[in-house]
Amino acid sequence: MDQIKNKQSKNIKFNLKDGQSPDREPIKRMLSQMEGMYLDNVTLNKMLSLGDRVVYEFYDLGMPENSEELAYGTTILYPGKVGDEYFMTKGHFHAKINTAEIYYCIKGKGYLLMENIEGDTELQEMTPGVSVYVPPAFAHRSINISKDEPLISFFAFRADAGHDYKTIESKGFRKLVIEQNGHPTIINNPKWKST
Amino acid sequence: MDQIKNKQSKNIKFNLKDGQSPDREPIKRMLSQMEGMYLDNVTLNKMLSLGDRVVYEFYDLGMPENSEELAYGTTILYPGKVGDEYFMTKGHFHAKINTAEIYYCIKGKGYLLMENIEGDTELQEMTPGVSVYVPPAFAHRSINISKDEPLISFFAFRADAGHDYKTIESKGFRKLVIEQNGHPTIINNPKWKST
Repeated sequence: MDQIKNKQSKNIKFNLKDGQSPDREPIKRMLSQMEGMYLDNVTLNKMLSLGDRVVYEFYDLGMPENSEELAYGTTILYPGKVGDEYFMTKGHFHAKINTAEIYYCIKGKGYLLMENIEGDTELQEMTPGVSVYVPPAFAHRSINISKDEPLISFFAFRADAGHDYKTIESKGFRKLVIEQNGHPTIINNPKWKST
Repeated sequence: MDQIKNKQSKNIKFNLKDGQSPDREPIKRMLSQMEGMYLDNVTLNKMLSLGDRVVYEFYDLGMPENSEELAYGTTILYPGKVGDEYFMTKGHFHAKINTAEIYYCIKGKGYLLMENIEGDTELQEMTPGVSVYVPPAFAHRSINISKDEPLISFFAFRADAGHDYKTIESKGFRKLVIEQNGHPTIINNPKWKST
């Protein structure tokens, strides 16, 4: 089937202060949708028994999925922890795995954690004004290490890249970023599965 | 020849206040390099006789030119006019013409002017927090309508898109944005050439 291409430009606002768009509805990822993603499942279930909450939001503008167009928007990751583990996005590979992504951080403090199938790990700090380039073939996850501020980035990737969430949902990342003695620390993920 | 692909992530700062990177050197476009681009060539030459100046700066990170990677950076367009015509970038098509580009404005006030070969024109206002999507096959030019502030945007496009400056250098855009009675006004370009 032929893809429908955009013949018109777009003007969409993503507020630089809070990342929100007055023009579109964000997708919200609730804590209850993150079950199994965190190391400390007991604490997660305790937190959920007190009520659900939004962990992050992002925009999907439904761009035509072809290689000539770009998908873009903001992602807003709220502060918080599950036990010692900072709030984070699920993280994913692209379905077309060899496609890159660019993040431009406009607010907050955190990391972009990346790994490829072979097991190479990349960790980049995100602060306002920092662009982080996710090279082709790397799964990527945002991590918010601030106590009170959301981590907000503008992102762009090839519109046909697609999302593979399942690989990370079933295997996890090899590395985790947790708080130890008050500082963010990268550790091996004891739950990581090689297959 | 095989393209070299990035196997590593990048962390490059582009300051949110002035768009400048402490990590890389920008490319500077001088007023003397804009000869023939403005309507009022007499005024341009008068200005140049008093001294040259930077009209805009942008970053080219030299990303590997393949379809799986992205080129990105900031563009900083200074305020000014040549006669009634606002300072602007040269504007260009992509060499791979059917590739899109995204701009995320972080400072200033201006427009993105776009047109395709068939003559469809798109004009989008740029203010802080506005993303403007340049659809595939549209030439694009930034225009700064502020009296005192630079127009600063973060941009991203497919790394193999390339630049075709020559078409616009020889034909011009069909439309121009000039100041009339103190207001930005879109007019037909009397110098536009159909061939």
